Amino acid sequence: MDNTVTRLAILGSTGSIGRQTLDVVRSLSPRFSVVALAAGQNLDLLKQQIEEFRPRYVHCEAEPTPTDVSTSYETLSLEEIAGHEEIDTIVIATSGKSGLLATLAAVRTGKNVALANKESLVMAGEIITREARASGANILPVDSEHSAIWQCLQGEAQSATGLILTASGGPFRSYSAEQLEQVTAEQALKHPSWQMGPKITIDSATLMNKGLEIIEAHWLFDMPFENIRVIIHPQSIIHSMVEFADGSVKAQLSYPDMRLPIQYALTYPERLPNPALPRIDWDKITELTFEQPDLNKFPCLKLAMEVGRTGGTNPSVLCAADEVAVDLFLSEAIGFTDIARLVQQVLAEHKTTAHPTLEDILTADAWARQLVSKLAGGGIPC
Amino acid sequence: MDNTVTRLAILGSTGSIGRQTLDVVRSLSPRFSVVALAAGQNLDLLKQQIEEFRPRYVHCEAEPTPTDVSTSYETLSLEEIAGHEEIDTIVIATSGKSGLLATLAAVRTGKNVALANKESLVMAGEIITREARASGANILPVDSEHSAIWQCLQGEAQSATGLILTASGGPFRSYSAEQLEQVTAEQALKHPSWQMGPKITIDSATLMNKGLEIIEAHWLFDMPFENIRVIIHPQSIIHSMVEFADGSVKAQLSYPDMRLPIQYALTYPERLPNPALPRIDWDKITELTFEQPDLNKFPCLKLAMEVGRTGGTNPSVLCAADEVAVDLFLSEAIGFTDIARLVQQVLAEHKTTAHPTLEDILTADAWARQLVSKLAGGGIPC
Repeated sequence: MDNTVTRLAILGSTGSIGRQTLDVVRSLSPRFSVVALAAGQNLDLLKQQIEEFRPRYVHCEAEPTPTDVSTSYETLSLEEIAGHEEIDTIVIATSGKSGLLATLAAVRTGKNVALANKESLVMAGEIITREARASGANILPVDSEHSAIWQCLQGEAQSATGLILTASGGPFRSYSAEQLEQVTAEQALKHPSWQMGPKITIDSATLMNKGLEIIEAHWLFDMPFENIRVIIHPQSIIHSMVEFADGSVKAQLSYPDMRLPIQYALTYPERLPNPALPRIDWDKITELTFEQPDLNKFPCLKLAMEVGRTGGTNPSVLCAADEVAVDLFLSEAIGFTDIARLVQQVLAEHKTTAHPTLEDILTADAWARQLVSKLAGGGIPC
Repeated sequence: MDNTVTRLAILGSTGSIGRQTLDVVRSLSPRFSVVALAAGQNLDLLKQQIEEFRPRYVHCEAEPTPTDVSTSYETLSLEEIAGHEEIDTIVIATSGKSGLLATLAAVRTGKNVALANKESLVMAGEIITREARASGANILPVDSEHSAIWQCLQGEAQSATGLILTASGGPFRSYSAEQLEQVTAEQALKHPSWQMGPKITIDSATLMNKGLEIIEAHWLFDMPFENIRVIIHPQSIIHSMVEFADGSVKAQLSYPDMRLPIQYALTYPERLPNPALPRIDWDKITELTFEQPDLNKFPCLKLAMEVGRTGGTNPSVLCAADEVAVDLFLSEAIGFTDIARLVQQVLAEHKTTAHPTLEDILTADAWARQLVSKLAGGGIPC
C-alpha cells in the first residue's frame, strides 16, 4: 500500500473538516493527490487551495468559475465530482443536506466515501446503506465518535452488542433550565473541547448533534436504537466505546483533534505516523469523568432519539427544522431553547412516511423548512 | 466454530485461575471438554473437580494417584499433559516457576497455550517465544492487562507504538514510606479490586506484579521496554491500553473479573455471550482516575523495569528472589519493605548471563533462592 497514491475529492474544502483534511494531506504528502475541490462561499480560501493543491476539477457555489488562479481546471457539479471515475476516495464535508445528493452519487459508483456530513445518513440512511451494499462502496466515518466505534470494531469476529457514544456535554452542561433560556449565540459558539463549524457547534450545545450521531450510528453499524446509549464525558478523551457479547468494552482515546479520524478514514486500514497529530500525555491525564445526559434540559437529544426509533421521514424533518432553527438562533431571531421548541412543533405536525424514497425525503425537508420559518415568523412558540 | 469442542488441560486447576477457568467451562458448556487436570496440594477440591469434569488425565503433587473418586483416569506428569496430543488448549495457571517447564513442553508441541503463569515469560521469554515461532504455537495471554492489549491489537494492520499497562496501585497506594514499613501480611492480602491467589496479591501490593507484567508484555507483543509504561488506575476498569502510530489509543474496559480474559483466551477469536460475566453499568461509573506510580515507595516496580532492560538471567533471579521473599513475608519472617530490599540485594550479587539457556535459567533460579534464604536467615537487611 505504501507506494499507492490515493486520488481525493474534497467537498466542502473551505469548511472546518475540509481544511483539516487538507492539513492531513499536507502532513502525509505524497500519499494523496487532490483531484477535486468543492466549496461554497469562501472564494479567497478556495483560490489559495487551488494554487496549492492544483486539482483537476473544481466546484464553487459562490462563483461558477473562479478565475485569477495560475492553474487550469475543469468546472464540474458536486454530483459529477462525486461520481467521477478518477477519484478513489471522496470526503463529504459539506454541512446540511447539500451533502446528501453528493453522498448518494459517490456511494452508487462504489467509491470510498469518507463521510463527515451528518445529514446524509440521518435523512437517507436506509437508501444510502442499501446503495452502498449494492455497489460495494465503503462508507468511512469521519466523525470522531463513529471513527472511534469503527476503530474498536476492527478485527472482531462478531458484531457488537452495544455502542456507547460519548458527548462532551457542550458549554452548558451544568446550566439550569433558566440559564439555558438566556444563552446567546456568542456563548453557544464557544465549545469547551472541539473546534468546529458554527452549525455543529450549536448542535453540540443543544445535544442535537449527539442525537443525530445516534441515528448515524444505527445505520453505519446496523445497531438497534435500544443498544445505543449516550454518556456525557466532558474531557472528550474517550471518543466512544463498543460493548461485545462477553461484556468486554473497547474504547478509543485521543485528544480532541479531528485530523485523527479524518486521517484514519483516508489511510484505513493503515495507520500512518503523523507528527502533527498530538499524543496523549499520560503524565497530565488525571481523570476521565462520566455523567448521564439530562433529557429534560436538552430536549433535542430526546427528540432525535424518538425520531430515530420512529424513522421514515421523521429524521429528515428533524434535520431540516433544526438547520433552519439554528440559523435563526445564530441570527438572533430566536432564543437557544426555541431551537428545540420549534423542532418539536414541526415534528408534531408531521406524518411520517415509512421507507421513504429520495423524493419523499426532499419533500419532507422542504415542508419542514417552510413550517419552521412560518412558525418562527409568526412569533416564537413557548 | 460453534460445533467444535475444545479439548482443555488445566494445570493449577485448584488455584484461583484454575477454579475460574472451570467456571467459564461450566458457563459455556458444551463448548469445552476437560481432558486433563493438574493440581498441587488441594486434594479435596481436585477430587470434586475430577467427579464433575471426568478428565482422562490427572496430575496431583499432593498424592500421586488420588483415589476414592467414582471415575477412572490415567496419572501423567505435568510435562506429559502439556505435550499430550489429545489436548488443543492448555491453561497454565500454576504459580511460580513450576509452570515454566510445562509451558515449554506445550509450546514445543504447537498447542494453544493460555498462559496465566507470569514466571514462564519473565524467566524464559526469549526461549519460549522462539520455540512458539518455530512450532506455530499460539501464546494466549490470560492476565487481564495482556488480554486487554491483545484485544486492542485485533485487526490492526501495523504493530503498536506503545503499551500502557494499568495498575490498581494495590491496597497501599497512598501509604507513606513509614506506613509501608508497618504493613502486615493480613493487610497486604486484602486487594482493593481483584480476588487473586496470595503470591500475586502480595506482588500487587509491592507493584512487583506490574513489573513482571512489563517484562511479559515485552515478550508477548515484541515491544521495546522504553515504549511500555505503567499508570496507576485505582478503579481497575481500564485493564490496559495500546497506542498506535497515528496517536490513537485503544483501551479495553470491564469490571475486574478474571473470567473475562480467561474466556477470551479460550474462545478466541470468538466472543461468546456468558450471562455470568458482569457488564459495565454506565449509570454507576462516574470517574476513572490515573496517577503516576511512585518508584521510590514501590522499588519492586523499578527493580523489575531495570531487570527487564538488562535481561539475561536477571529476570529469573528477580522472580526467584521475589518468590522466596514473598513466602518469608507471608510467614511473618520479614517485613513488607524487606521484600524489595532482599530482591535488590540478591540482584546486586548476580552477574547476568545474556541469552541464557534453560539450564542457565534454572541455575540462576536455584542460586537466587538459596541466597535470599541465607540473607533473610542471617538477619533482615536494612
